[in-house]
This record gives sequence, C-alpha cells and structure tokens, in this order.
Amino acid sequence: MHHVLVLHGPNLNALGTREPDIYGSIPLAELDHRLHDLAKELGCALETLQSAHEGVLIDALFGAVGRMDGVLLNPGGLTHTSVALRDAVVATRLPVVEVHLTNPRRRESFRHMSFVSDVAVGVIQGFGPDSYFLGLRALAGHIRHGSQT
Amino acid sequence: MHHVLVLHGPNLNALGTREPDIYGSIPLAELDHRLHDLAKELGCALETLQSAHEGVLIDALFGAVGRMDGVLLNPGGLTHTSVALRDAVVATRLPVVEVHLTNPRRRESFRHMSFVSDVAVGVIQGFGPDSYFLGLRALAGHIRHGSQT
Amino acid sequence: MHHVLVLHGPNLNALGTREPDIYGSIPLAELDHRLHDLAKELGCALETLQSAHEGVLIDALFGAVGRMDGVLLNPGGLTHTSVALRDAVVATRLPVVEVHLTNPRRRESFRHMSFVSDVAVGVIQGFGPDSYFLGLRALAGHIRHGSQT
Amino acid sequence: MHHVLVLHGPNLNALGTREPDIYGSIPLAELDHRLHDLAKELGCALETLQSAHEGVLIDALFGAVGRMDGVLLNPGGLTHTSVALRDAVVATRLPVVEVHLTNPRRRESFRHMSFVSDVAVGVIQGFGPDSYFLGLRALAGHIRHGSQT
Amino acid sequence: MHHVLVLHGPNLNALGTREPDIYGSIPLAELDHRLHDLAKELGCALETLQSAHEGVLIDALFGAVGRMDGVLLNPGGLTHTSVALRDAVVATRLPVVEVHLTNPRRRESFRHMSFVSDVAVGVIQGFGPDSYFLGLRALAGHIRHGSQT
Amino acid sequence: MHHVLVLHGPNLNALGTREPDIYGSIPLAELDHRLHDLAKELGCALETLQSAHEGVLIDALFGAVGRMDGVLLNPGGLTHTSVALRDAVVATRLPVVEVHLTNPRRRESFRHMSFVSDVAVGVIQGFGPDSYFLGLRALAGHIRHGSQT
Amino acid sequence: MHHVLVLHGPNLNALGTREPDIYGSIPLAELDHRLHDLAKELGCALETLQSAHEGVLIDALFGAVGRMDGVLLNPGGLTHTSVALRDAVVATRLPVVEVHLTNPRRRESFRHMSFVSDVAVGVIQGFGPDSYFLGLRALAGHIRHGSQT
Amino acid sequence: MHHVLVLHGPNLNALGTREPDIYGSIPLAELDHRLHDLAKELGCALETLQSAHEGVLIDALFGAVGRMDGVLLNPGGLTHTSVALRDAVVATRLPVVEVHLTNPRRRESFRHMSFVSDVAVGVIQGFGPDSYFLGLRALAGHIRHGSQT
Amino acid sequence: MHHVLVLHGPNLNALGTREPDIYGSIPLAELDHRLHDLAKELGCALETLQSAHEGVLIDALFGAVGRMDGVLLNPGGLTHTSVALRDAVVATRLPVVEVHLTNPRRRESFRHMSFVSDVAVGVIQGFGPDSYFLGLRALAGHIRHGSQT
Amino acid sequence: MHHVLVLHGPNLNALGTREPDIYGSIPLAELDHRLHDLAKELGCALETLQSAHEGVLIDALFGAVGRMDGVLLNPGGLTHTSVALRDAVVATRLPVVEVHLTNPRRRESFRHMSFVSDVAVGVIQGFGPDSYFLGLRALAGHIRHGSQT
Amino acid sequence: MHHVLVLHGPNLNALGTREPDIYGSIPLAELDHRLHDLAKELGCALETLQSAHEGVLIDALFGAVGRMDGVLLNPGGLTHTSVALRDAVVATRLPVVEVHLTNPRRRESFRHMSFVSDVAVGVIQGFGPDSYFLGLRALAGHIRHGSQT
Amino acid sequence: MHHVLVLHGPNLNALGTREPDIYGSIPLAELDHRLHDLAKELGCALETLQSAHEGVLIDALFGAVGRMDGVLLNPGGLTHTSVALRDAVVATRLPVVEVHLTNPRRRESFRHMSFVSDVAVGVIQGFGPDSYFLGLRALAGHIRHGSQT
Repeated sequence: MHHVLVLHGPNLNALGTREPDIYGSIPLAELDHRLHDLAKELGCALETLQSAHEGVLIDALFGAVGRMDGVLLNPGGLTHTSVALRDAVVATRLPVVEVHLTNPRRRESFRHMSFVSDVAVGVIQGFGPDSYFLGLRALAGHIRHGSQT
Repeated sequence: MHHVLVLHGPNLNALGTREPDIYGSIPLAELDHRLHDLAKELGCALETLQSAHEGVLIDALFGAVGRMDGVLLNPGGLTHTSVALRDAVVATRLPVVEVHLTNPRRRESFRHMSFVSDVAVGVIQGFGPDSYFLGLRALAGHIRHGSQT
Repeated sequence: MHHVLVLHGPNLNALGTREPDIYGSIPLAELDHRLHDLAKELGCALETLQSAHEGVLIDALFGAVGRMDGVLLNPGGLTHTSVALRDAVVATRLPVVEVHLTNPRRRESFRHMSFVSDVAVGVIQGFGPDSYFLGLRALAGHIRHGSQT
Repeated sequence: MHHVLVLHGPNLNALGTREPDIYGSIPLAELDHRLHDLAKELGCALETLQSAHEGVLIDALFGAVGRMDGVLLNPGGLTHTSVALRDAVVATRLPVVEVHLTNPRRRESFRHMSFVSDVAVGVIQGFGPDSYFLGLRALAGHIRHGSQT
Repeated sequence: MHHVLVLHGPNLNALGTREPDIYGSIPLAELDHRLHDLAKELGCALETLQSAHEGVLIDALFGAVGRMDGVLLNPGGLTHTSVALRDAVVATRLPVVEVHLTNPRRRESFRHMSFVSDVAVGVIQGFGPDSYFLGLRALAGHIRHGSQT
Repeated sequence: MHHVLVLHGPNLNALGTREPDIYGSIPLAELDHRLHDLAKELGCALETLQSAHEGVLIDALFGAVGRMDGVLLNPGGLTHTSVALRDAVVATRLPVVEVHLTNPRRRESFRHMSFVSDVAVGVIQGFGPDSYFLGLRALAGHIRHGSQT
Repeated sequence: MHHVLVLHGPNLNALGTREPDIYGSIPLAELDHRLHDLAKELGCALETLQSAHEGVLIDALFGAVGRMDGVLLNPGGLTHTSVALRDAVVATRLPVVEVHLTNPRRRESFRHMSFVSDVAVGVIQGFGPDSYFLGLRALAGHIRHGSQT
Repeated sequence: MHHVLVLHGPNLNALGTREPDIYGSIPLAELDHRLHDLAKELGCALETLQSAHEGVLIDALFGAVGRMDGVLLNPGGLTHTSVALRDAVVATRLPVVEVHLTNPRRRESFRHMSFVSDVAVGVIQGFGPDSYFLGLRALAGHIRHGSQT
Repeated sequence: MHHVLVLHGPNLNALGTREPDIYGSIPLAELDHRLHDLAKELGCALETLQSAHEGVLIDALFGAVGRMDGVLLNPGGLTHTSVALRDAVVATRLPVVEVHLTNPRRRESFRHMSFVSDVAVGVIQGFGPDSYFLGLRALAGHIRHGSQT
Repeated sequence: MHHVLVLHGPNLNALGTREPDIYGSIPLAELDHRLHDLAKELGCALETLQSAHEGVLIDALFGAVGRMDGVLLNPGGLTHTSVALRDAVVATRLPVVEVHLTNPRRRESFRHMSFVSDVAVGVIQGFGPDSYFLGLRALAGHIRHGSQT
Repeated sequence: MHHVLVLHGPNLNALGTREPDIYGSIPLAELDHRLHDLAKELGCALETLQSAHEGVLIDALFGAVGRMDGVLLNPGGLTHTSVALRDAVVATRLPVVEVHLTNPRRRESFRHMSFVSDVAVGVIQGFGPDSYFLGLRALAGHIRHGSQT
Repeated sequence: MHHVLVLHGPNLNALGTREPDIYGSIPLAELDHRLHDLAKELGCALETLQSAHEGVLIDALFGAVGRMDGVLLNPGGLTHTSVALRDAVVATRLPVVEVHLTNPRRRESFRHMSFVSDVAVGVIQGFGPDSYFLGLRALAGHIRHGSQT
C-alpha cells in the first residue's frame, strides 16, 4: 500500500462557499472524503492538510520524508510566489503532482507562472475537483512506475 | 453599529521607533487608540491585529467573515508579494480599504506594484497615520453605502 | 483660513452623465458645491477649475503660487501622460493631493502608472466622489501640519 | 440625414505641402471639400475641425454630444500619446472611426500603439486621402446599422 | 477590367455560424457573393479562396502573379504568426489590402501585432463584413492609382 | 455513447522511437490502441488523427462539429505558435482537453506559453502516455457534466 | 541677417525662482535678453515665446515657416511625451536645435527618451543657461552651413 | 557515397525573380543544378525539395530517416516561427546545416531569432547562393567526421 | 563580547542530507557547532535559529533589537521573494551579513535577484559552509568597526 | 590659463576619410589644430590624445589629475559599452564635457544609451566638428564658473 | 593575388588546450598553418594576428586599409560587447566574414547578440576549425565577386 | 605553499584617494601589503597586478596557468561588460574568487549583473578592503579543498 500526502494551500478552506460557479460546490471536507474513497480504490492511504501558512506546508513536506511515497499539492496563491516551497519539493525529493481547480491561464497574468511546475512530476489544471481525482490517479501511477490509469 | 477589522502587516509593530521622520512618531498602540476614538465618532466598533505572518493575516480575514462589515488593511511588505493574501480578500468578499503610511510611488520600484489594490474598494497612501484615519472614514462611508465623509 | 485650489482634469465635466455606475451620478457642479461645504467645515476657502487643456491646468498651478496653500488635483487622463504637469507640481512647490474617482489598478494597464503620484503628498483613489472629500480632509490636515482628520 | 464631425489632429493643417509624396498633394481645404461632396452622396451633413490642441479636440467631442451621430477622427500624433482624448471618446459615447493617411506600422515603433483604436468602431489606415473617404463610408454604414457600402 | 484575388485565411469558413454577434451572420458564400456584386460595380473581376493551410495561401499568392492586379487578404490567425505569408506578399510584389472583421486592438494582446500590415498598402479593421467591402474599394482605388472611392 | 476525437500534432508519429527515455517507448499505434480500450471502459467511441499540417488539424476540428462531443488535443510544437489552431478551438465550440507527454515548464522558455491552454477546458502535462489516459478520463467526465473519474 | 525663433516649453516661465541651484538664478526675461545680445553678435534676429500649451508651440512652429531660418527649442516636459510636437518639427522642415538646462540623463529614467532629438540637428544639455547660448551658436553655425563657432 | 537532402522553405521558388539584387539572379532550378555538381565533386548524392507547407517539410524530414546522412535546410520564413519544424529536426536526429541567402541580422528584428539554429550543426548566412555551396561543404565535412573543406 | 544572531531560512534544516554534493555533508547542528567555535575564537557569542516561517524570522529580528550586535542571515528561498523580511532588516537597524551556501548566479534566473542584498552590509556566496564562517568573520569585523579579518 | 585635455576614442583617427558626408571632411589633425586656435582665443591650453584602447584613455584621465582643469571627451563606440571609462571619470573628479560628431539618437538603438552622460557636466551632439568647438566653449565656461559663451 | 587578414580575438590563443571536445584539438598555430595552405589553393596571401586587446584588433583593421582585400574575423568574446570593433569594421570599409568555432545560439543568451554580424558580409558558425576554412572560401568568393566555392 | 594571483581591474589604482568614505582610505599599495601578510599567515605566496586594460588582465590569467593555484579577482567596471574576461576565466580553468569593495546591489542597476560571478567559485562584496581579506581566506580554503577558515 502506498502513502500519499494531500496538501491544500491558502484559501482552499473556503472551498464550496467561495465562488461556487468557479470552484464547485463541494466543501473541502467532502473533497477529502472522496479522495479517500478513490485512494482506497487505487490501493493508497491518504493524509490531508490545509494551511494558509507557507511554513506549515514546508514543514509538512519534511515531515513526509520516509513516511510518504508522493504528494498531491495544490499550492494555491503560493504557486506564483514561493521559492521556499519549491525548494522544499526539491530538498525532500518526494514526487509531487501539482493540481489546480481552475485553469491559471484563463486568469490574471501573474498566475501564468508557477514556481512548482518545473520541479513537479506533472501538472493537472482546470477540471475543478476532478483535477484532484485525476492527480491522485496520476501520482499513484507514477509511484507504481509502470503506471496505468 | 458597524464592525471593522484593522489588520497591520509585517513590521508595523515597529511604528514610532522605525524611521520616525518617515513613519511618524506615534507607536502602534497609540495609533490603534486613536482609531478606536475615530471609530466611536463614526459609529463603528473596531478590532485590531498586527502580525508578520501571512498565514495569520489570512486566517484573520476568514475569521472576520460574518462578524465584520469591512477591513482596513495595511499589508506592509506583503502588499507586493502575496497572492495568497489577495486571494483571501477575494474569497472572503469583505470590503477592504488598503492604506499605506508612505507613498509607495516615492520608493523602490518593487513597491509600485500591489497585489491588493485591484481587489480593494480603494487605496489611500502617503499621509502617515492620517492614511489610517482617512481610510476608516472611507470604509465607514462605503459600508453605509450612500456614504459621506 | 487656508486656501485650496481644486483642479479637475480632462473629461471630468462629464461627471454625473458619464457611466454613472462607475463615476457616480453627482454632476461636477454638485461635487464642487459639496466640496465648498466641507471646506467651510474644515476652515478652508476653495477655488475650483476644470479643463481639458494641459496648458490651462499648468497655468492654474502657477497662478496659485502665493495665493493658495495646497491643491487637490484629479489629473484625469493626463495622470498617465503629462510630464509637464508633473514638472509644474514640482516647480510651484505647492502641496498636492492626487485623487481619482475610480481605482486605476482595476483598469487598463496604462493607467497603473502616474507621473504625479511620486511628487504628490499622497494619493486617494477608488471611492467615487468620496475620494475628493477624503482628499480635501487629507490636504487640510497636511497644511495644518499637526493634522488630524 | 445623419450628422458627422470630422476631426483632424495636430499637423494636418500642413496637408498638401508636408511631404506630398507621403501624404498626397491635396490641401486640407480640398480634402474637406471632397468629404462634403461624398457626405452629400451618402446623405450626411459634415462639420470639420483641425487643431493642434488636445483640449480643443476634446471640447469638440463634448460639443458634438446630442448634435452629431458619429465622428471621423484622425488624431495625428495624439494617437500615440493622449489618454485624455481616448477618455473623451468613451465619455461621449459617440461612434468614432479612426483614420490615418499613412500606415503607422510602416513607421517608427512608437506609432504602432494607438490609445484610440480599441475604443473606436474600426480603423482605416494607409490609403492617403482615401482613408478619409473610406472612413466616411464606414461611419455612415455604421450609423445606419444595417450598413452597406 | 482589373482582376482581384480575395484570400480568406483559417477559420473564415465558419463565418455566419461562429459568434454571429461578433462576426455577423452572413456566411462566407454570401459574403463572396456580395463581393462579386461590388466588384462588378467597381469594374473588377474577382477570384476567392479560403484555406486553413498557410502553404495553400502562399501558393495562391504566387499563382496570382501576372494574372491578378491586387489581393484582398484576411489572414485570420496567421496575421500574427506567419513570416512566410508576409514574405510571399513581398516576393510577389502584388498590392495587398489587409482586412479584418473585428478590431484586433480590442482583443488579446497577441493580436495587436501583424506581420502583414507593414508590407500591405493599408489596413481596414473592425467593420464586420463591411471591412471587406471597404477594402475592395480601397484596393480598386489603389490599382486605378488616381483612385477615388 | 460519447464520441471523442483524439488529435496528435506534429512529430507525434515519432512516438516510441524519438527519445524514448523522455517520451516513453510506446509507439503511436499502441497508444491509440490503449486509448480505444480505455474509451470503451468509459463508454466512449474514439477517432484518432496525427498530422504535421496545421491546416489538416484545423480541418479535422471543423469536421468534428456535430459529430463529436469533445477533443483530446496534443498540439505538439503548434502549441506555442498557432493562433489559427486556437481560433479553430474557439470557433468550433468543442470542449478541448490539452495534453502533453512532457512538462513544458521543464523545457525551453518558448514552450512555457500555450495558445491553446486558455481556451481549453483544462490541461494535463508531464505524465508521458498517462497524460492521454488522464486526459480522456477528464474529457469524459467533462462531457458527462456531473463528471467523476 | 538670419531669423531665429526661440521656443521655451512648459514651466520655463519659472526660471530663476524654480530650484535655482539646479536651473540657475537668471529669470526667463533676463535669459531672453542675453540671447538677444548674443544673437546680435552672431548677426541674427530673435523672436522668443514661452508656453505651457503644446498646441501653442506647434502653432508657433507653423507660424515660423517662411519667416524664420531656424528654431532653438527647449521643449521642457513635452520632450518626453509629445509626438505631435515632433511631427511639427518634421512637417515644418525648420532646422531645430534642442537644448536643456539640465542633463536629462542625470534625472528620472522617463527623461532619458526624447521625441525631438532624432529629428533635431543636434542636442545640447546640462550647461544651465549656457545650453541656450551654445545652442544659438550651434544653430547660427548650422544656418550659415560652413559654420564655425 | 553520402546522401544529402536539400530542403528549401517557403518563397524560395521565387529565387532569381524576387529582388535579384538581394537574392541573386540564379533561379532555384539552376541553384539545385549547381548543388548537384558540387555534390558529385564532394562524393555526395542529393535530393532536393521546395515547399511553402510546413507539414510537407516536416514529412520530408521524417521520410529522410534511414535514407539520408544529413540535411541542408533553408527554412525561409519558418526559421523564425516554427517550433514544429525544430522538433522534427530533433526527433529525426539528422545532422542539419542551416543556410540563408541573406544575413538575417541585417533585416527586421523578428528575423534575428531562429528556432532551428540551436539544434543545427551550424549556420551559414549572408553569402547569397554561396551560402548553399558552403553549407554543402560543411555538411559533407561533418558527415565524414574528420572533415576538412 | 559581541552578540550575533544566526538565522537560517527555509529548508536549511535539510543540510547534510539535501544534495550533499552541492550543499556539503555537514548537518545543520554540526554547522552551528563549528560556528560557535569560530565565534568563541573571534570573541563573539552566538544564538542560532532555523525556520521555514517568514514571520518567525521577522519576529526573531525584532527580538534581537537591543540584545544583538549583528545578524548572520541565510534567507534561503525567501531571499528572492520576501519584501517583509527586507523591511524588518531595515526597521531593526541591525547590521546584517547575507550568506549563501551556493552561488545563486549559477542557478535559475529567479535566484539572481535578492531583496536583502542592498540593505545588507555585504554578501558572501558560493563557498558552501565556508560562506558562514567567512560571513561571521566579516560581521565580527564590521561590528568592531576598524575590523580586520 | 586653464588646461584642457581633449580625448578622442576609438576610430576617430579615421576622421576626414570615414564617411565624410556624415563626419565631415576635416582630418583629426586639422580638428585638433582648430581646437588649439579656439583654446588660445578662450585662454586655455590644450593637450590632445586619440586611442582605440580603453585602458589608454583611462590612464590618460588619471594622468590628467592635478594637471588639467577639465576634459573634452568623445568616447566613440566606448560611449555605450565602457563602465570602466565611466568609473574613471567619476574617480578622477575631473569635469568632463561629452561630445559626439553625430546625433546618436538618429542611429542604431544601442547608441541611445551612454555610460558617460550622467557623470558628465553636459553633452553636445550632432553638430559635426562644431560639437567639439561648442564643447570647448562649454567646458571653458564651466571651469570659469560664472561662465558665458 | 588577394590579400586577406585573419584576426583571432581574445582567448583563441588557448585553442587546442581549452575544452578540446568543444573547440577541437588543433592549436592556433596549426589552424593558421592550414589556413595558409587553403589560401594558397584559393590564390590568396594571408596575414594572421591574435590578441586579447580590443585596441590592437582595431588598430590591425586600420593597418589593413589599402593593403588587404578582406578580413576573416573571429571576435571571440568581443562579438557581444564591442561597439568600437564594429565601428572599425564600418570605418575601414573592408569586407569582413565573421566566423565562430561554436554555435553561439547553443550557448548563454548573452552570446545570441553580435555587434559585428549586421556589418559583416556574412556569418559562419558552429563547424569548429571548419568555420575558418569555410569562411576563407566565402571571403575569397566575395572578393572575386562572381564567386563560386 | 600555494600560489595566488591577485588581479585588480580598472580604477583600483585610485584606491585610498577615490571617494574614501565609500572605498576606504587604504591605498592600493597598502592593501597589497596587508594581503601579502595575510597570505603568509595562510601559507600562500602572492603576485599582484592592477590594470585598466582588459587585454592585460586576460594575458595575466593565461600567464598564471601552471604557475598559480587560484586567482583573487576584482574586475572593477569590467565586471559588467567583459565577456572576454569571463571566457578567459573559463579557458584557464583557474579557480577564481570574485571580490568587490562595495556592494554592487546598492548601486546603479547596470552593476547588478556580473559576467564573472557564475564562472567564479564564489563572490564576496560590500566589506571594503575586508572583501579582499575574506576572499583570500575563501580562495585558500578552496585550494586546500577540505578548507576551514
């Protein structure tokens, strides 16, 4: 059984209430619940964490070393501003799949740049909550190496 | 009676001692005190918070949802770097007035850009502590809608 | 008693009829009227002028030297294009408070730059007609030095 | 019968004598004369004005509100520098067709940008005096809505 | 009698069905039909071609050498990306009038640049199907040299 | 049953032989075969096409209108250069999921920009052939609306 | 005897009182007086004009055609913003020598660009009032062609 | 005997007639003829192809795999716009020598960038038809490895 | 005896295990130990702190005011993103020496910019753990003013 | 009597023969001769030096310290590339007048920037050999302080 | 017999020992030797010079005027930084062929720009020592005008 | 015993007299003297050289090959302009430590870029003469590999 850490960055606590036409109407707890179900189906065990604190997210990455096989990461607004988070991804050597509910390319130009993308295994963006489900499949496939989704 | 949250970002704890010729010689406690006085005059109740932690400021914004009618925000150095703080302003849908003691245009070019301005109601900058007093008036006016200062 | 010049730049003659949802429905005459009322309350005497002519605005600034204690300036579209107006602000050494009805940061990128801001005392933008009232308070405070609003 | 204002910006008074190989040898009076002829043919009445003064052109736009159905505008050098003129086009809500004798793309790079184009109905450039005649047809068509040239 | 080639670039086959509020509701066949009518009125004979293939458009330009007196060209999306098409315009020495249904200045910034404009006689944009009709008049005038529209 | 068009852009014919350590060792035929299998599992019918011709890809998009419910698109090198392909995505109104075998962010800077991303439903990149399988799931979910993967 | 027009742009009326350590303590009238003296010595007749109005300066250039042999021009803040003034220099074909009291390179970066320099005969900057005296010599030399100062 | 493919991109069909003072007066057929002669002298066999179709050129590169030892490529206008052609050069792993008749550095700035140069063996530009002859020598030398020209 | 605060920013907890060929194989505890030894030799007393939290580092700077004579600061990834940390350096008026284990100029371009360098006494980078030892010498010298290392 | 060093940078040895229509037909020796004559008239003694070696020019500046009262400097192509020459101007504290035969603004864009201008007293450009004569007058005036030309 | 000057810029003295896998293992003396052999074959006489001194290279260009028919120039690192060298190429009017051992496009971005290319006859780069041999052929052909290699 | 070459670039001859508040009051001879003392203490032998000639510095680097174990380099103004010096650092393969008396980040923006930094072992800047002493320690440590300062 593989262990996967799911990290939700700043403002994802507002999921379900924040602009539901954009982000969907599923609250974060419900999203996490469904991720646990899919994880079981894929033979994975999940831990999840949401925080608006860059330092908490970095500490969580270091806490995952030796315990987790991969990370599903939605860095929220830190995507575009945090070199420290990027460095933690590199320093921990954990495979990371970056996911976004929305398609950053459809939004302000400062969202077109990501400090995480080029150190992630891959990126999935624009599918609402499905971005997470696809991302978990992608990460599970990556961990199993020969991978098939 | 309207409720207003006053958020002071990083380094504003140093007010009164830090370059008093630039920032004025009023300490933060004194500024908050005067803001409370003006709030009373304007029929508002204030809560104030200062923090150097981006995450604490974001959490405070979410904590204000449903309890506060508006936010007077001096994001300090985070003005120019925090997409997460900006996203919290948008996600909480609280009316925010952005204030700065100094005029960022007179300073380094990296201060000319603000991630908060275009999601704030308006911006007041360059009047020292008066920026806060004017900002509170502006916010009170905005909350009362028909507003007059 | 302090004397204040209020300068309205190009297109502000259209106030009240031009996109009232953006600029408010108060015509310029009404705005000037209310400014006179607030001035009286603040112990100031006002003169007001609107012009689409950069040269007229510059001449007015020079005409204010020795007669006026400060200027409330909404440069309109000249904000982003007139070095000559900026130079007049510097040359006349009059304290200038820059105001804008709208928040230029929410608009086209060519409006994000101001030739006046870094030679003004401060800037107030985004509060509709309230920007003027707040600006007059700010200027009055600045002229009285110890200032309190 | 539709009423159309033709505005010629700075330096167009020199038409016919200024670099005739580039701008053609028709003087401005002759151009206006031919425009009147074509207007008659198209069932329009024309007024024409040339000025090197940005403020005069802006005032003319405001003077046209309620009297004119559209404007044929050659902003000359102000094309690339006047936000105030652009704002007047927007504020007056008059349909404007932008014309240029020459093709700005063939000239200095600072002429490649226009503050008017994106608030105009359309743009016609590069055909010498024909740019005006085509522009008048385009404007007449636009005013008549179903338009056909 | 003058011979004119009308070239429609990629996606113009969708005319009439694609966002009719932007591009108008006239299908391409109808547009070509009306162009033929106007051509007759102007004493011209037309050939028309639509293709999504850059190479086909370039081959058509070379095929027009010696047979055609001018080209009415709407390069569609190739406007902003094809140096090869531009080079063909130069190499064939055919007078080209560039037309666009919409006003590229009102759209994404990558549409503000055109590889064709500075090698075309002139440009007409923003008038819907009328851009073509005006363009044909402009081209006919250009071919007849002394031209009058 | 939903119908999905899979479009492979330039150079994807080389799959399996071209830098297999980067792109994987599955030839295009095998990839298409596995996509058909997954499609069956998801209740979709597939058509697939590979071409180095921008025009052929655009024609295929128009050919899909009315016959297909969505498109899985790997635009290859055209991702970064083709406005015409982007316009075809918009003009046909077909839901498009953009996929890439590699993560363009890890490669040359000219690959960081995509003309397709902001008109696509979403983007999946960096997972080798899995990008296609995840993309097909994402598209199927999008077509079924309530979508679940 | 040669005739020379001296044009002073915006804010030069303030000469002598405006930052005298930068601009010198000679008032404009005195500067004009000394220029007349030097002109006499060089066998020239002068006319001088100061205006903050771009349009007035342009009109003065056109008014000089046929009457003046050259222009000594200090465009002030218009140097960096006026394409219309530049175009008037070109359209009138008058030889223009551009002068500045200060050295624009030592000042804000927006002063490093001049719309006039590349259509002027030459540029003299940084010598205070001497810039004008040197400029008059340069212009007189240029008019006499074989020139020697 | 080595086999070399010579690919001429868009507009090179016009050689000899298109601006002969720039491109020389040798038609393409004559250039190919002389290349065959030089190839014989260098112990090579040539195939040549000219096309305005990016897809045709890419297909030709793939068709050369296993049959050709190297490619002499003049991408014409595609030099500056085609990532797909560049990717084909990389994907086919054929040694490519890039040649240009003219020196792109002497021309428009958009020609200063090449998508092919950094994946080519080397570049030869500016010598008219001689660029091809030098390029063939360079390629032959490169294929023979120890190479000497 | 001088008191020096050593601040290690985000990810420096990974020292010794994170890419030891780049960062060296000394763990953070060992580095701190050796710094204490060198401090003793230089007559200084040290306090050290590592944190991934920007706010914690800022709070530590304020906590050092009045207790410490200088700060040895490796801001890690915050070097390139934190205006708030920079402002704290300025607000506390503590002399700061900035050190980096690696040479940021050899790495990604976003690392070439530092918000701290221009408010630091000086910078030492690229010598692995020696950067710290040299930095401590530099800081001790700076504190002793006449300084010699 | 004042002592002035005249420094001619690279390629000025070619004066008189190099593009005489641009640079004039006076050889360098003749120019120096006339400068000596004017110097005598102005009560100055001259030394002159031409070199293509940046180091020689810098050494000459240091050699002038204590012996010369000012420098007339035409840095030639080094104008746009030599920080070392600029630093020497600053380090020697000699008043420097920068002169250019041509007007760099009329030439390639890389000539629009000067490393010397903002550390020079002033700049004179575009008057051919007269630039030197005017520059010598300007420098003499500057040395005599009250200066009049 | 034609006379050709071969100029090797900075660091080319290290040829053969400096990174031989990049630059080849032929020392400079051997390269010059082989160039003499090829020159003889092509009916030319050679002179060669290597220097790290920009001034020496410029002096050599002037020394070649009237004695040499062309120059084979590898400016080394000066390619990207020396306007003075470029100006000497123009001033001497000698035909220059620019050669580089490596392909600058494959290297750091500051090597993508050349101050020499657009004033050279043509450029050959990326073929190791063969770049010189091809360059000599190209230059010889250019000198003989009708040229054939 | 290790041998170290100390290279001082342009203008460092002025040390002690040039702006002593910035650069310190120690003359170059005294600095070299102290460096010799520290070198002895560290078990090194020094050679020192100062020159304003880029070529002399490059020649000195080549002269150090085989004789010196490392170089302490202050490139002065050449830091920001000399690709040739950078190439010499790479070509000679000598370990180089780059030092600056001042902190370039506190100065003009053209000093923020260094052509040497990314090919140096490391960089030390901002400590006045101490930068050299720290740099010598750093270099000695680097040469001894296990290094400890």
